[in-house]
Amino acid sequence: MFEKTETVPGWLAPEELESVRERMPILYVDAVPVRVDDTGLVTRVGLLLRIASDGAVSRALVSGRVLHHERVRDALLRHLEKDLGPVALPHIPASPQPFTVAEYFPTPGVTPYHDPRQHAVSLAYVVPVSGDCRPRQDALDLVWFTPEEAASPLVQQEMPGGQGVLLMQALAHVGVLS
Amino acid sequence: MFEKTETVPGWLAPEELESVRERMPILYVDAVPVRVDDTGLVTRVGLLLRIASDGAVSRALVSGRVLHHERVRDALLRHLEKDLGPVALPHIPASPQPFTVAEYFPTPGVTPYHDPRQHAVSLAYVVPVSGDCRPRQDALDLVWFTPEEAASPLVQQEMPGGQGVLLMQALAHVGVLS
Amino acid sequence: MFEKTETVPGWLAPEELESVRERMPILYVDAVPVRVDDTGLVTRVGLLLRIASDGAVSRALVSGRVLHHERVRDALLRHLEKDLGPVALPHIPASPQPFTVAEYFPTPGVTPYHDPRQHAVSLAYVVPVSGDCRPRQDALDLVWFTPEEAASPLVQQEMPGGQGVLLMQALAHVGVLS
Amino acid sequence: MFEKTETVPGWLAPEELESVRERMPILYVDAVPVRVDDTGLVTRVGLLLRIASDGAVSRALVSGRVLHHERVRDALLRHLEKDLGPVALPHIPASPQPFTVAEYFPTPGVTPYHDPRQHAVSLAYVVPVSGDCRPRQDALDLVWFTPEEAASPLVQQEMPGGQGVLLMQALAHVGVLS
Repeated sequence: MFEKTETVPGWLAPEELESVRERMPILYVDAVPVRVDDTGLVTRVGLLLRIASDGAVSRALVSGRVLHHERVRDALLRHLEKDLGPVALPHIPASPQPFTVAEYFPTPGVTPYHDPRQHAVSLAYVVPVSGDCRPRQDALDLVWFTPEEAASPLVQQEMPGGQGVLLMQALAHVGVLS
Repeated sequence: MFEKTETVPGWLAPEELESVRERMPILYVDAVPVRVDDTGLVTRVGLLLRIASDGAVSRALVSGRVLHHERVRDALLRHLEKDLGPVALPHIPASPQPFTVAEYFPTPGVTPYHDPRQHAVSLAYVVPVSGDCRPRQDALDLVWFTPEEAASPLVQQEMPGGQGVLLMQALAHVGVLS
Repeated sequence: MFEKTETVPGWLAPEELESVRERMPILYVDAVPVRVDDTGLVTRVGLLLRIASDGAVSRALVSGRVLHHERVRDALLRHLEKDLGPVALPHIPASPQPFTVAEYFPTPGVTPYHDPRQHAVSLAYVVPVSGDCRPRQDALDLVWFTPEEAASPLVQQEMPGGQGVLLMQALAHVGVLS
Repeated sequence: MFEKTETVPGWLAPEELESVRERMPILYVDAVPVRVDDTGLVTRVGLLLRIASDGAVSRALVSGRVLHHERVRDALLRHLEKDLGPVALPHIPASPQPFTVAEYFPTPGVTPYHDPRQHAVSLAYVVPVSGDCRPRQDALDLVWFTPEEAASPLVQQEMPGGQGVLLMQALAHVGVLS
């Protein structure tokens, strides 16, 4: 849930968003970018790499808000293009049914997910991408892991806020947990 | 999406909610109450009946907002108890995976769902209820239909805002479309 | 369920298959081929056309058996390539979770699905295809319908054995029922 | 997949079943019995305990074949009653959509699941049970674990054939992985 500043005219100004965040659940999408083979089997999982100013490494799924008057599938496409670049060629699922709903609470422990800033409810999807991924945000890189690597404690501990759990759920959903 | 006024201290005041409604998607849940037999097969679907001051009849699913710091499953239980009474004994699904996500847009035609007041995104669940249902709101009654009756044009045309489509999707999901 | 003869060495001979068909449920897959736009929204549904010797028209989904030691995703790919040709480029779903399970019973009325020859249990998937579809079987053509056309009584009545219901379930699952 | 002998007249005799097992995928169901709270949240997972003649302990899900002319939901109910007793009160899901499809191959490594005797394809469901569970088979006991315990290496290593993975997938599906 490392949201980047969004300054789209006509939507909530940052200070308004702060105010709303204390009062209502905010709708998000989470996307797990994957590479698949000809039979649809997931062979790699893409995670965004972030390095904080203190050198701390963290990894994240593609994630962001759904805006007013924006369809969920448009929000998915927008965030995937923002994080993976314009030629990633994401295959947005035909069905709006998410594999799970991740409820990020400001209070830790209510659910497996935590976001200190807000109560975010995120619709989570696995999204095959077949193109060339070029992360466009400065502090981001994208690393492809095998399902085994993605499920390893090493990667899991680098994913804050419960996104490691959400990744495990995605791996379980596509049948590549082992 | 016939939401009743909610005056819970600490949450959004009505005038604030109006303001936010023009700026952000609002998170909802839709529940389709059903009766099932011993094998889980849906035998009846419960629809709320409303009669407007001009005598117009409409039917609706159980529906309402998810509040700040409220889990989706708690919102489901709260709205089911509010609309069906305290001894309806709803069996909230173990999985948070909804059967679909209904996106109610203020502009008609963007999706099959429409809500003139707001952009509402609703997680939709089929919920078996095994107890005694006693609608508690004044203008409400609950009527149980067979799946065939629920899918009929007569019932469908009494469900505004695309809830007829959502009901058809629920029937399809539980395998009782014919 | 218009299965073509399969003469793969080492699997069941036709007469053996006949014998087993009276004793066990046979595992099938059903695929609903679709065209999607950039956001994953289904814009067209592909149905196979068959014309019987008496001139009767029927339409069908891509359907067929899962063989011994064959993964479900390999069976999906094999039947799609067999019916749509080698350059259809089907995107087999990453998740093995079907949108429904269609139980074709030899006795009509047990479920919405019927197959006079056998008890077939079919895992049903929606499969986007992005390539050029060239049906290879003699009596087959592939026609692309809008979701509205696919749900129309005209098309529905041309789909025997309950596949019209299964198609409606697919449309419901991908959110294009109206 | 510790199947018990089934001697139902009119179905396959044991020697016939052996023959078919080498030629066709056999349809199974797997059920994960759970206890849920009022909001549907899974609080306990039930695993069958088996002690082999050499004292080896193993744990298993409720599992078994779907018979000819038997609906999947009837097979689920039959196997749950067989393993948990007549007053377990299982709540068979309203939807036939399984949370996953487990493909047990006779060759290890093709999928995460393995059954040396056969190629079994199993539809997997999470089933809340609200009654009193009294395992009826001699060598069986039922033990309730918290989700954390069920996901622990200790329990996982006692579940052969990939059922530990299937259990993890069930925990992921109901949102209680941590």
